[in-house]
Amino acid sequence: MEKLVFLFREGNAKMKNILGGKGANLAEMTLAGLPVPPGFTISTAACHGYFEAGDRLPAGLEQQMSEALAELERMKGQLFGDPRNPLLISVRSGSVTSMPGMMDTILNLGMNDETVAGLASRTDDWRFAYDCYRRLIQMFGNVVFGIESHDFELLLRKMKQETGASQDQDVSAEGWQRLIEQYKQCYMKRAGRPFPQDVHEQLRLAVEAVFKSWNNPRAKVYRKVNRIPDNQGTAVNIQSMVYGNKGDDSGTGVLFTRNPSTGENHLFGEYLVNAQGEDVVAGVRTPLPIEVMRTAMPALFEQLSQVAKQLEDHYRDMQDIEFTVEAGRLYMLQTRNGKRTAQAALRIAAELVREGKITKEEAVSRIEMSHLDQLLHRGLQDNGDLQVMAAGLPASPGAAAGILVFDADAASEMSRSGKRVILARPETTPEDIHGLLGAEGVLTSRGGMTSHAAVVARGMGKPCVCGCEAIRILPEEKRMETDQITVREGEWVTLDGTTGRVIIGEAALREAEMTEELKAILQWADEIRTLKVYANADNPADAQAARQYGAQGIGLCRTEHMFFAPERLTVVQQMILASSPEERKAALEKLLPMQQEDFEGIFRAMDGLPVTIRLLDPPLHEFLPSEQELGERLAELGEASQDGTGRERQLVAQMLRKVRELHEVNPMLGQRGCRLGIVYPEIYDMQVEAIVQASLRCQATGITVHPEIMIPLVGHANELKMLRESVEQVAAKVIERAGQPDRAPIHYTVGTMIEVPRAALTAKQIAAHADFFSFGTNDLTQMTFGYSRDDAENKFLAHYVDQKLLPHNPFQVLDADGVGQLIELAVNSARAAKPSLKTGICGEHGGDKESIFFCYQVGLDYVSCSPYRIPLARIAAAQAYIALGAPDGQRERLEINRTA
Amino acid sequence: MEKLVFLFREGNAKMKNILGGKGANLAEMTLAGLPVPPGFTISTAACHGYFEAGDRLPAGLEQQMSEALAELERMKGQLFGDPRNPLLISVRSGSVTSMPGMMDTILNLGMNDETVAGLASRTDDWRFAYDCYRRLIQMFGNVVFGIESHDFELLLRKMKQETGASQDQDVSAEGWQRLIEQYKQCYMKRAGRPFPQDVHEQLRLAVEAVFKSWNNPRAKVYRKVNRIPDNQGTAVNIQSMVYGNKGDDSGTGVLFTRNPSTGENHLFGEYLVNAQGEDVVAGVRTPLPIEVMRTAMPALFEQLSQVAKQLEDHYRDMQDIEFTVEAGRLYMLQTRNGKRTAQAALRIAAELVREGKITKEEAVSRIEMSHLDQLLHRGLQDNGDLQVMAAGLPASPGAAAGILVFDADAASEMSRSGKRVILARPETTPEDIHGLLGAEGVLTSRGGMTSHAAVVARGMGKPCVCGCEAIRILPEEKRMETDQITVREGEWVTLDGTTGRVIIGEAALREAEMTEELKAILQWADEIRTLKVYANADNPADAQAARQYGAQGIGLCRTEHMFFAPERLTVVQQMILASSPEERKAALEKLLPMQQEDFEGIFRAMDGLPVTIRLLDPPLHEFLPSEQELGERLAELGEASQDGTGRERQLVAQMLRKVRELHEVNPMLGQRGCRLGIVYPEIYDMQVEAIVQASLRCQATGITVHPEIMIPLVGHANELKMLRESVEQVAAKVIERAGQPDRAPIHYTVGTMIEVPRAALTAKQIAAHADFFSFGTNDLTQMTFGYSRDDAENKFLAHYVDQKLLPHNPFQVLDADGVGQLIELAVNSARAAKPSLKTGICGEHGGDKESIFFCYQVGLDYVSCSPYRIPLARIAAAQAYIALGAPDGQRERLEINRTA
Repeated sequence: MEKLVFLFREGNAKMKNILGGKGANLAEMTLAGLPVPPGFTISTAACHGYFEAGDRLPAGLEQQMSEALAELERMKGQLFGDPRNPLLISVRSGSVTSMPGMMDTILNLGMNDETVAGLASRTDDWRFAYDCYRRLIQMFGNVVFGIESHDFELLLRKMKQETGASQDQDVSAEGWQRLIEQYKQCYMKRAGRPFPQDVHEQLRLAVEAVFKSWNNPRAKVYRKVNRIPDNQGTAVNIQSMVYGNKGDDSGTGVLFTRNPSTGENHLFGEYLVNAQGEDVVAGVRTPLPIEVMRTAMPALFEQLSQVAKQLEDHYRDMQDIEFTVEAGRLYMLQTRNGKRTAQAALRIAAELVREGKITKEEAVSRIEMSHLDQLLHRGLQDNGDLQVMAAGLPASPGAAAGILVFDADAASEMSRSGKRVILARPETTPEDIHGLLGAEGVLTSRGGMTSHAAVVARGMGKPCVCGCEAIRILPEEKRMETDQITVREGEWVTLDGTTGRVIIGEAALREAEMTEELKAILQWADEIRTLKVYANADNPADAQAARQYGAQGIGLCRTEHMFFAPERLTVVQQMILASSPEERKAALEKLLPMQQEDFEGIFRAMDGLPVTIRLLDPPLHEFLPSEQELGERLAELGEASQDGTGRERQLVAQMLRKVRELHEVNPMLGQRGCRLGIVYPEIYDMQVEAIVQASLRCQATGITVHPEIMIPLVGHANELKMLRESVEQVAAKVIERAGQPDRAPIHYTVGTMIEVPRAALTAKQIAAHADFFSFGTNDLTQMTFGYSRDDAENKFLAHYVDQKLLPHNPFQVLDADGVGQLIELAVNSARAAKPSLKTGICGEHGGDKESIFFCYQVGLDYVSCSPYRIPLARIAAAQAYIALGAPDGQRERLEINRTA
Repeated sequence: MEKLVFLFREGNAKMKNILGGKGANLAEMTLAGLPVPPGFTISTAACHGYFEAGDRLPAGLEQQMSEALAELERMKGQLFGDPRNPLLISVRSGSVTSMPGMMDTILNLGMNDETVAGLASRTDDWRFAYDCYRRLIQMFGNVVFGIESHDFELLLRKMKQETGASQDQDVSAEGWQRLIEQYKQCYMKRAGRPFPQDVHEQLRLAVEAVFKSWNNPRAKVYRKVNRIPDNQGTAVNIQSMVYGNKGDDSGTGVLFTRNPSTGENHLFGEYLVNAQGEDVVAGVRTPLPIEVMRTAMPALFEQLSQVAKQLEDHYRDMQDIEFTVEAGRLYMLQTRNGKRTAQAALRIAAELVREGKITKEEAVSRIEMSHLDQLLHRGLQDNGDLQVMAAGLPASPGAAAGILVFDADAASEMSRSGKRVILARPETTPEDIHGLLGAEGVLTSRGGMTSHAAVVARGMGKPCVCGCEAIRILPEEKRMETDQITVREGEWVTLDGTTGRVIIGEAALREAEMTEELKAILQWADEIRTLKVYANADNPADAQAARQYGAQGIGLCRTEHMFFAPERLTVVQQMILASSPEERKAALEKLLPMQQEDFEGIFRAMDGLPVTIRLLDPPLHEFLPSEQELGERLAELGEASQDGTGRERQLVAQMLRKVRELHEVNPMLGQRGCRLGIVYPEIYDMQVEAIVQASLRCQATGITVHPEIMIPLVGHANELKMLRESVEQVAAKVIERAGQPDRAPIHYTVGTMIEVPRAALTAKQIAAHADFFSFGTNDLTQMTFGYSRDDAENKFLAHYVDQKLLPHNPFQVLDADGVGQLIELAVNSARAAKPSLKTGICGEHGGDKESIFFCYQVGLDYVSCSPYRIPLARIAAAQAYIALGAPDGQRERLEINRTA
């Protein structure tokens, strides 16, 4: 028969999957000789068995529990249910992954109308015994039968009023005794059955209640949020009771081995004299700082300090310890790795390394991504006295304050004159890009986590609150309002992109912290990892930021963002409206110096590092106003006098015709990417010319350039073959024209994004024409799933994740089974054909930990992400190496690439 | 050294790839002892060598040609260039695949100012010799230097006028001699060099000209249209001349061994006395029917008949033979399988089987898809006296005549009252479906080969002319017009969907022919093939048609088409506008009996055969009017008085809100397919209820039903798992409610379309919940390539096919490398997990020959196509079996499926 019950001395810390975290730690502490009240653990396998058997205790469990209980009785010299000297126990849940506050606890189990007398006579304290009994009825009723604690509290308050007791301590034994009768009546009424006097029935019901609580709504939500598998189950810990409420030489407390807020290396905690654990939590009395104990109970403090040190050394991490002192004797009830703030986490990890307690690898492994997210963005200094106007979606983390403006031009102008502004729009479009650039933060009333504003803001590392529907944003009237409040242009507001709050006035902010500890840990991560980290950066400023954050290159420089600046957009539109290749070329010639200038700036910022430039990708209609907008403008002009507006009318009419001509049913799958480059070769020719000229100019000033020209949306090898030939022709022409044969030649490479499923499937053929592959996992996810991200995320996809049809949103966490399979297939078949091929990823997944692990596992050379996620990616890449080891041939292959 | 030159006696018919079709046949005829003028063939390898060497004759070729020429001189007892008894030769191209009229021929090569005298003295005919010489100059100048024939013809005409000759025969030797001088001057002027007197130079230039002609524009276009690989190359045939123009006992002719129009088994052909081959082609004199020869030259006719029989028996197919009689002696110049009409092709194939000359397999293999296309559609009886108004795209083959109407309602009503109508619209939408159903044919002025009208018409087997931009269709004014002609509602028009012509008036039509021969061949095909052929059919009438054409089941019944009938559409719209599941259920309850009735009709038509019903697939907004339409209607109603229009206004406003809410950026990748079924479970529940109830009712009347319920657009196994559970629950409930436990149970299966790349990639997991897979290759192609069909086909895709970036339009011919790879991967991984899984294809590729071959090759169980393409698919499936053999385990696995 399977062993389902383990005495504490039979287990150890490694048995967490079977014993749960708490049970494994109690076993480990017992093994280490610490003073732990004896007990046993019912395994998670028993929990599985309970659900499999249709909510019934699995065969053999009761027998094993009896045997363990008998051993407990032997160790304590007490009998469970014995009216003279009863064994009392606690029952607690203990899941594999820590789920604080999610599961319930019952203390004092084993009390009934008879054993209460036994406890009273043994302790010589009727008041204490009745108090324990009434606590059991309350907790048991609440946990096992769902009776509201409130019902019991009301009775307690009433009794205290009647007896004139102001605090629990003032209640007499008789008071508690009377209350017990009232509790029993309440119990009978709510549960429909009397409180069980049979202590074994108490135990059975309590164990079942712990099992059932695995599926209570709070627990389910917590698991969903924290991605804990539903089938993990919980263990149950049965432990003999010790009492901190037995007098003034008793007490209970919580202790952290280091400060969980700051990370400082000193004991940190609180204790209460003459109290049980729940009194600390309930906040009825104010606990004392642990430091007080040093003078009040010096011997105990010394013992506690030693135990704390022993536990930290044993677990090699800061511990969160629960202890009880019963009549001057110290008992350890629990220890676990302590929760900590972001700042503390880094400091503790770094100091443990310096103290020689853990390795750099361990320090790096312990860093949580959410901590980095906090540290790397500005936040509100104080959450207290804020006038919150409304809350929207927390679309891009960090906080910012500024003067409210309602259009992109104003945002851009005011920011140039040195003012800090917040841009508020019903929604943003690519034409607002200069406004987003100028603003400190962005607020929209429409659009989700992946709306234009959200995506761009995240890319820029700026706070953004999206889809804040409670606020009506009225740009024409230069104000925004809720039913209660109106804010006008020029007034101060603060956005908290981490929580989604819109705050009136200028709130105080704390700066993002690139602490010494963080720098040290990033440094260690860099020493460990083999996966490179590149940045997605579209302009010199982003490139500079990326480099500061540690980017080893640019993995994606989108050239279209350069087209949206107002003075350029007009030229881009001329290019689109051109009726012949010649006209188009004329417009493109005007764009060329502008693009070239951008490239020069980026090359300078990335001196010595590779810069991957993607040629134009979006469909051309994105550069024109909408059909509706043009229609309305045309209608206006129609009514106005013909003279002055004749030329504008003509232009608007021409644009409208073009917009209609370019209209596509599914623009995602339409004429974009290399399809544009093939149909209008002049566009890519101009871009290549700009890249090569910029390279030549930078090189002439001593900058080392490594341009990598990336062709988007290739689906067939012939597309890349044809475009590669064009690139090489144009580049050769430009280099020849420059005519400096004595100079070092420009070394550029040509590669492609793999973002169409067919490209992944035919990677071998495509690799023949490519120096590198960059997996564009945003589009690859869209096409592999057949999801339009714009349409899916706010509609059925949310429903899918809610209903657990999908484990995650595949745009946030790379779908290993489907999209990942394509990536793996492509990498393997392409490498077999061309071992020197460089591979990376440049979708948003490049900044997600799980996805980075996947990229490392399939052997990519780099991930590329937004500059502000680079520290995160550096840590994750190191964690991947630590967790997965060096894949076969990985280091060797990377060496080949380095020398290539 | 590679052998590049082959004497006719060194080759045979199997060496077609090396010798070209003509060369291989000349060799085969020589081997068979037929009277072929001796000669040799320069191989296609020499042609490749020529292009590889940069348009230079490859090494060794001239040496090998000299040797072959020496052998020719020996056989003929003449010397090439000998002034006394010159050897004269013809030079002709001969590609591997027959390319009639594409390549050029030079006769009489070897003539010059000296050899002309030798020919004259040997034949004792100066007139003949000069005539031969002037022909050489003309042909050589034309073929080698591109001198327009017209230039020479002008000189000939002038000379005839001057000498008073009315026909070529009237021209004297002196006349020809004078013309030769003029020809030489013309040659010098146009070519910039004199006509070469060196006969070896003539030969070399001629051979090069043949090679070069492989890349002339006509040849390139022909290859593209007929999908002949560009790198196949052409051979060159050098043959000693024989002369049909040596007097009245000479002549030349063309002979078919059977009638190429009707297929009747008698000699068919024409001949000209005293003429050379090109005279027949030039049409200067009218040739005589071959029958005349029987009395005019009985001995020769007898010999010719025997040779014809011998050749047909040898090649086991109807032959197209060229012959020449020189001074009473018969020479065979060429034989090849004769081109024939559709009707003749079937008759000849069937009769050859009956005559025991070929097997049924061979007969089936020879059927061309284009022939079936012709036979299976109505056509115009006569192409003569037609008043063509304009021509558009030939979007759906066949011809139809009817009264012109301009809206779907009118088309539907008039057809119900027994009138034949043609529906003309600027374009059609799903709401016009009842009009398309009623009309004989459809004309649109906008939209391409894959517009709504085109796709629906092809599915219904109705003629359709699309994108006829020359005609302005004005539904409001109930007329259509070109600049010249106006046609009004009620007038007769005829559409020819095979050519795209719009004809005024009622043209006479010939019916589609399901001839006895076709039936016999289809019967043979059914005996051979193992791949099943199902039909795509959405209503009882289509199901009936499908069964008549030999469908073995329905592979795709789209339930949404049932929603578009006007009386149903209103209810569907109520369903969509419902604000709660209850309201939605109420509307669905009204739809249920309608769907059920349709299913009953289909089950009856398919008694005993499987019917695969796809649950609702399109996005809901397809059932609502467009935003523009609603906006305009709202504006109209706004101006009208509020009283009468209040309710309509409310409804329109409600629809407009819903349309905006449902708007999607990329509807192809949005909330459709099973995503609808998951978010609105009531819809699928209703459909399943209708299917099961219809099954029960049909079964009660003795019909055998095999419903196969198909869930569309699955991308993750969980989707199918969840929906399969719902299907089973609803079905069980309906069956229980029917409460006839003694009756035979309903056997239904549940499967899915594989049309999302991820579904193919995770086929193994999905197969766990599926009884069958049906590959929806339309959508699978869209997503695998990232092409929106609506946007691609008229834009970049046409450019891609033109530029040969893609070998075919992947929506017409299945892309084996990409989409096919996914299908193969899915079939293999799913079958490994579930060997009993039934697999098929239901995209438009199911009716394309190459795609059917692919489906057979990867081991699918069936293809499903439009009813009107079923005969074609039956033949193609048999051809696949013949060409590829039985795949391992294929028959065995099919047996398993049959018993399942």
